[in-house]
Amino acid sequence: MRIIFLGTGGGLPTPKRNLPATALQIGSEIVLFDCGEGTQRQFMSSNASFMKVQKIFITHFHGDHFLGLPGLIQSMNFIGRKKKLEIYGPPGIVEIVDRVVNLGYFSPGFEISAMELKSGESLHFDGYDVFAVAVDHLVPAFGYVLKEATRPGRFLPEKAKMLGLKEGPLFRALQKGRNVKVDGKLITPEMVTGPPRPGIKIAISGDTRPCDRFAKAAENSDLIIHEATLDSSLREQATDYGHSTAMEAAMIALRARASTLYLNHISNRYEDASILENEARMVFPNTFIAEDLMEITLRHRKE
Amino acid sequence: MRIIFLGTGGGLPTPKRNLPATALQIGSEIVLFDCGEGTQRQFMSSNASFMKVQKIFITHFHGDHFLGLPGLIQSMNFIGRKKKLEIYGPPGIVEIVDRVVNLGYFSPGFEISAMELKSGESLHFDGYDVFAVAVDHLVPAFGYVLKEATRPGRFLPEKAKMLGLKEGPLFRALQKGRNVKVDGKLITPEMVTGPPRPGIKIAISGDTRPCDRFAKAAENSDLIIHEATLDSSLREQATDYGHSTAMEAAMIALRARASTLYLNHISNRYEDASILENEARMVFPNTFIAEDLMEITLRHRKE
Repeated sequence: MRIIFLGTGGGLPTPKRNLPATALQIGSEIVLFDCGEGTQRQFMSSNASFMKVQKIFITHFHGDHFLGLPGLIQSMNFIGRKKKLEIYGPPGIVEIVDRVVNLGYFSPGFEISAMELKSGESLHFDGYDVFAVAVDHLVPAFGYVLKEATRPGRFLPEKAKMLGLKEGPLFRALQKGRNVKVDGKLITPEMVTGPPRPGIKIAISGDTRPCDRFAKAAENSDLIIHEATLDSSLREQATDYGHSTAMEAAMIALRARASTLYLNHISNRYEDASILENEARMVFPNTFIAEDLMEITLRHRKE
Repeated sequence: MRIIFLGTGGGLPTPKRNLPATALQIGSEIVLFDCGEGTQRQFMSSNASFMKVQKIFITHFHGDHFLGLPGLIQSMNFIGRKKKLEIYGPPGIVEIVDRVVNLGYFSPGFEISAMELKSGESLHFDGYDVFAVAVDHLVPAFGYVLKEATRPGRFLPEKAKMLGLKEGPLFRALQKGRNVKVDGKLITPEMVTGPPRPGIKIAISGDTRPCDRFAKAAENSDLIIHEATLDSSLREQATDYGHSTAMEAAMIALRARASTLYLNHISNRYEDASILENEARMVFPNTFIAEDLMEITLRHRKE
């Protein structure tokens, strides 16, 4: 799975950080989380095409998180999109989508569906689930957890050979999940495969104060992408505006026993965000600052 | 007067060209023409502050020309704007402004006025007028002509001395436009000043086919900023979509007897726009391609 940070700023863009948007490429499909103003142009500077976006999850309805929707939709149409686009978000998303689609002289030539989610709701898609969890911001807001489906264990040719099988049609039948018979003896795929392989799990906080529900939902994530608007010297201000400090984000990653933490939604006051990285690493060493157009690739877990 | 090209692309942004927006700085005030998505961020990469924008003129309601409004307005509010913002455009602008202001959890802490203009209407402001002229696009669209007020002629000290005046209080009185008496003889300011000095005139086409009304309104402009979406080999396509070729833009500048022509609204197909510049210069040699974040300064005309 490929993660592309399209916008890592918060509230106000800067020349280096655009407004929030994070793209997850799963196979040939892109799932987009938030869509700040200018997201379509960030795509154009990245190695990903916005025409591959099939689903957009909006965390909440502060402008910096969704005002890129109308431009993205109009440009998809300009290029000739026919495929349906699905947009999910907290209650209110249906009206928001209706409003941003119907601006000026525009009517899309493709279907756009909008769907309101409830906190705790899990959506099942082909190959992955997305779970919405209410977080703690000034307005109703969700964090999202995406978890790939567990895949069957790896085929173990050595084990098959020990059971008397030879490479060839019976091998392939077992790999495809079918039972075979050798010398009158039944051999099932389970007998020649390793344990099931859990899918990659990624948790995206959106804007929030440190949030128990989110930490719980993000347990054992391969990657947490957590907002870290401010550093700890500005904790009071972070609290007032419903945001987290970098250290608070790190504490969430620690409690969730995540593998890796990336910080985003960095305030425009930080030209150099290393102060945020440094304070977070005191709590959770495997912390990094997300930068615009940075890409990371997560491999499937080893069994 | 300073002209800052904030977005010189058309339809789709590219990494080099953002969507349309042109800022004119007149004294300490900025007048913005169009406001494509990402305009607030383009301001941040320029030497101009969007907090100085007092008036925005929208040419028409295709998304690439106005979808930067909600983000710009929300960021102005974020930074604490209190000053009124005026937005002008073709009929429909009042509803558009109402829609883009009321998106998500947002209510501005400053007054936003929207005003529909009629073609041929001229608005008088302190120091300049703005004239709206209907152009020829797929939807109702305006070009705009901004003309600074004519300023009184320059004070000519040599002429004053020839009439028997000496430097001092009488000089200053004449400079301030008052009559004086020397040896019983009346001397009026007109007797010691050059001819009135015309203000700078700038014409901005917006999206349009080559348009007689616009050429007429732009007569004797110091600067025409004309769309040139395509080159002449794609004239048919330009016609179909209500746009101009670079050569057609040059013919408008020639007919208007303008001093200088800048081409903008460049299609994303041109990585190198010199093909547009070259064909336009065959008709109107003083043609240039506008680039994002390019600034030009126009001085008052000499008498």
